[in-house]
Amino acid sequence: MKTVEFYFDFGSPTTYLAWQRLLQLQGQYDFNIDYKPMLLGGVFKATGNSSPVMIPAKGKYMMADMARFAKRYGVPMNMNPNFPINTLPLMRAAHGALKLGCFDLYVKTIFEAMWINGNNMSDPSVIGSVLTAAGLDSAALMVSTQDPEIKQTLIDVTDEAINRGAFGAPTLFMDGEMYFGQDRLDFIEEALS
Amino acid sequence: MKTVEFYFDFGSPTTYLAWQRLLQLQGQYDFNIDYKPMLLGGVFKATGNSSPVMIPAKGKYMMADMARFAKRYGVPMNMNPNFPINTLPLMRAAHGALKLGCFDLYVKTIFEAMWINGNNMSDPSVIGSVLTAAGLDSAALMVSTQDPEIKQTLIDVTDEAINRGAFGAPTLFMDGEMYFGQDRLDFIEEALS
Repeated sequence: MKTVEFYFDFGSPTTYLAWQRLLQLQGQYDFNIDYKPMLLGGVFKATGNSSPVMIPAKGKYMMADMARFAKRYGVPMNMNPNFPINTLPLMRAAHGALKLGCFDLYVKTIFEAMWINGNNMSDPSVIGSVLTAAGLDSAALMVSTQDPEIKQTLIDVTDEAINRGAFGAPTLFMDGEMYFGQDRLDFIEEALS
Repeated sequence: MKTVEFYFDFGSPTTYLAWQRLLQLQGQYDFNIDYKPMLLGGVFKATGNSSPVMIPAKGKYMMADMARFAKRYGVPMNMNPNFPINTLPLMRAAHGALKLGCFDLYVKTIFEAMWINGNNMSDPSVIGSVLTAAGLDSAALMVSTQDPEIKQTLIDVTDEAINRGAFGAPTLFMDGEMYFGQDRLDFIEEALS
């Protein structure tokens, strides 16, 4: 069975679209998703890249572009009014969730809070309420963000992405090929079918 | 009949792919292409944007990405070893070619020289030979690049693109919608069909 390695950061709206589309594709094709939580800020810093929204005209266009893809995929999406959000605790807690065995629910909860519900996920108290409302162990997840091993794992996965050629998010690998962007999932679908 | 407005610069390899794909789509759907020669450097300067190849990791990935699309479209493409090329005279001469009535042949000749044949189109003597070999009036086209009216037209079309929201090339408009990139022609195709 094929595996898609999915380097992601919750802070990227196109990564949310990629996640939704990957779940849809799993309904049609047999493949594994190997989730790789990374820190997009670290990737940007190492590669000299920056968020497309730093160019105002590009940021404006992206809003229309993402709405077109959300419509094509048939998934809900709302731009988060608190964008950009510092995702360091969220990405550390993703590694915590892997350790705690609640990863899938954690990923779904955070992506939906960010890109459907527009929650201010920069605010620790909002993060806590969102996790608790989803039935997750908020305290354990928040404690994990201060675990030196978790901190190092996030650094390591981010470095791994950079070393493999990533310069943004989402970055996906399948069959030794790298794909950047939710708008390249059609190539992954072609390779799966 | 629908019209696709195509803001382009010969210096952009993805714009070459878009041009090839637009010609293919014209074989399937009834629509006009309204060619808008602009200076990509001017668009970058005005918007704060820059070529993706300025980020080395992105530039490397783009080579693989463009090869995937060339294969998907079934068109030849070779990265020009002289990239990046200063396209100011080429874009001025595009407006000259519109005036001289040899636009389609000029566009085909320059795109092929740039992105199939790998000619060094920064070199005026190479431009001259390429135009002459294609049966174009090289002298008249080169003279047009010094015509103040032609110079101003290129500035005006570039400003028009910027004012309409362009931040790179290719930028296309159809039915009042803006599309950026050769990888968005599938949305144009959807709207045509």
